[in-house]
Amino acid sequence: MTNNELLVKMIFDRWYTLLKNCDAIIDNVSDEQLQKEIAPGKNRGVYLLGHLVAVHDDMLILLQLGEKEHAELFELFVKSPDRAVENIPPVQELRMMWKQQLKSLPTKLDSLSADDWFEKHTAVSDEDFIKEPHRNKLNIIITRTTHLAYHVGQLALLKK
Amino acid sequence: MTNNELLVKMIFDRWYTLLKNCDAIIDNVSDEQLQKEIAPGKNRGVYLLGHLVAVHDDMLILLQLGEKEHAELFELFVKSPDRAVENIPPVQELRMMWKQQLKSLPTKLDSLSADDWFEKHTAVSDEDFIKEPHRNKLNIIITRTTHLAYHVGQLALLKK
Repeated sequence: MTNNELLVKMIFDRWYTLLKNCDAIIDNVSDEQLQKEIAPGKNRGVYLLGHLVAVHDDMLILLQLGEKEHAELFELFVKSPDRAVENIPPVQELRMMWKQQLKSLPTKLDSLSADDWFEKHTAVSDEDFIKEPHRNKLNIIITRTTHLAYHVGQLALLKK
Repeated sequence: MTNNELLVKMIFDRWYTLLKNCDAIIDNVSDEQLQKEIAPGKNRGVYLLGHLVAVHDDMLILLQLGEKEHAELFELFVKSPDRAVENIPPVQELRMMWKQQLKSLPTKLDSLSADDWFEKHTAVSDEDFIKEPHRNKLNIIITRTTHLAYHVGQLALLKK
């Protein structure tokens, strides 16, 4: 195993562990619990669920893995704060999108080799990448993993 | 920059960004806010502050970087749940420990070279490390970074 392969494994172990933890929480809270705020006056669980699907969907663009599957969610759950948009998809539909993404995303990520992960992502220019080689595709997984952990810590609060 | 140096930089960028985010939250909440629960019936802010100092202190042992600075915190904030122990250190004291650790920990971590980070940590045996080379020192930083992100997501809820 090369060091690149080793590091990719280390990062993906974390990413998938956190996705699994998040999935277990979502499975263990009811639709009613997801409608609640994670703390008084803060985001609702349902907003965080939509937010995670939208942010993970956006990774496809950054990693050049094709088109988004749920492009409409970005405006609702990333650009807009919770409760700013009246008509968001029902909880059951967001649950289905989450489950479906949990299957489709790993398949797409698996299509990249260990070395591919050290290539630049789409939000960095060729010139900048020469100066900042850490702005590679693997860094997208690293930053999305801590982003996920941040919100898993919040979703865990919905459990009784 | 060697590949190992690049990998180490990517991980440490995240670690230090999250420590900085956490520090900014702690600076921006009052002692009274820290005494509050992050959500009804959940951990108090002060418990999470002690928990983070204790977990980060324990990294010194795992990374073979000397003795713990606050060994007494492990029992109070890792082994015991919030409110199980009556006499925990006052908030002001925990704030001081946090600030002091924020200075001392990076100095100790900086003493390791990029290659050192791919050596095994103290909680894995020589035999296991041959089979599981991802259980290296850098993995301690990766797992503690997602652990930190999880609790930063919760501490952020204390802000108004």
